[in-house]
Amino acid sequence: MPMIIEGLITTRSPSGTINLAPMGPVTDPDLTHLVLRPFKSSMTYQNLKRHPEGVFHITDNVLLIAHGAIGEFQTLPDCIAAELIQGVQLADCCQSFEFKITSFEDEEERTTLHADVLRRRNVRPFLGFNRAKHAVIEAAIIATRLHLLPAEEILREFDRLEIIVDKTAGDQEFEAFELLADYVKTRLKR
Amino acid sequence: MPMIIEGLITTRSPSGTINLAPMGPVTDPDLTHLVLRPFKSSMTYQNLKRHPEGVFHITDNVLLIAHGAIGEFQTLPDCIAAELIQGVQLADCCQSFEFKITSFEDEEERTTLHADVLRRRNVRPFLGFNRAKHAVIEAAIIATRLHLLPAEEILREFDRLEIIVDKTAGDQEFEAFELLADYVKTRLKR
Repeated sequence: MPMIIEGLITTRSPSGTINLAPMGPVTDPDLTHLVLRPFKSSMTYQNLKRHPEGVFHITDNVLLIAHGAIGEFQTLPDCIAAELIQGVQLADCCQSFEFKITSFEDEEERTTLHADVLRRRNVRPFLGFNRAKHAVIEAAIIATRLHLLPAEEILREFDRLEIIVDKTAGDQEFEAFELLADYVKTRLKR
Repeated sequence: MPMIIEGLITTRSPSGTINLAPMGPVTDPDLTHLVLRPFKSSMTYQNLKRHPEGVFHITDNVLLIAHGAIGEFQTLPDCIAAELIQGVQLADCCQSFEFKITSFEDEEERTTLHADVLRRRNVRPFLGFNRAKHAVIEAAIIATRLHLLPAEEILREFDRLEIIVDKTAGDQEFEAFELLADYVKTRLKR
């Protein structure tokens, strides 16, 4: 049965500019096939439509995912060339998956792209179940849905997640959560 | 800065019986040192007091953690002998950490045990951030706190977590969540 794994994806524009974005593909347990569902307005979709290759990454670095969720990579993290596709992979991640899109279903604004994994690389162990890391993931998802959720519900969720962060976080998770909380509070005040 | 990682711990009784239990030690980012906080009434504490060695495991197998949370391992999963201590490690896990307790603070009912990691083994990659896996972890933690939380709050939390499971789970996460939901509902009816 398929499941959704939250991670980061790199794609490449025709001019060679690399885009890094959070992505939660649907995948089989063996991670041989990915189903991506980017919006047509996203750089990920626009890049893949013209160059149908990229790299999906599993990482435990929630600070990177938090920055990605609010569209704020000041500089791209260190990358290395992919091996089987034209593109790059994050130097620091837990696993990377070079993929090629095999079919586009893009009649709707939210598209469905099927991809085959061509190469899987194990880089370093994922740190495991840390409740604060997951609280950051939930906070990052909320931060991308501010226009869809009532302000009260958003603030109540952040209050709930903050308790978990306070109990179980390390430095990285505190920093990531604070980044997202500041972003959300600033946006909600407008 | 230290953080809490949720996993599973094996300990050994003087007669050689192995106990497996969920545990969320505080650890440094390099996982060289663990701080365990078992209750005196727990088998983990009682075993460690007499044989101060064990193995901590990082795993993405939430079904195992769910069974552990409700005290229900019908049979111990496959294990192999530890290398540097007297004890066993789970054959299937992501990482294992053989440890030795270096100090006991056990005046209170909730104890604090400091441990040094003697050996770290990487077994297989952790699957990464799946929201349903973490929803199961949160549900498992609630299942161990039924006596501390109001019934309404417990059921509200399970309703909230179920939405995440329905959206992002694979088979294992569905099974684990259902196990915990049934357990909790049965207990709350009494």
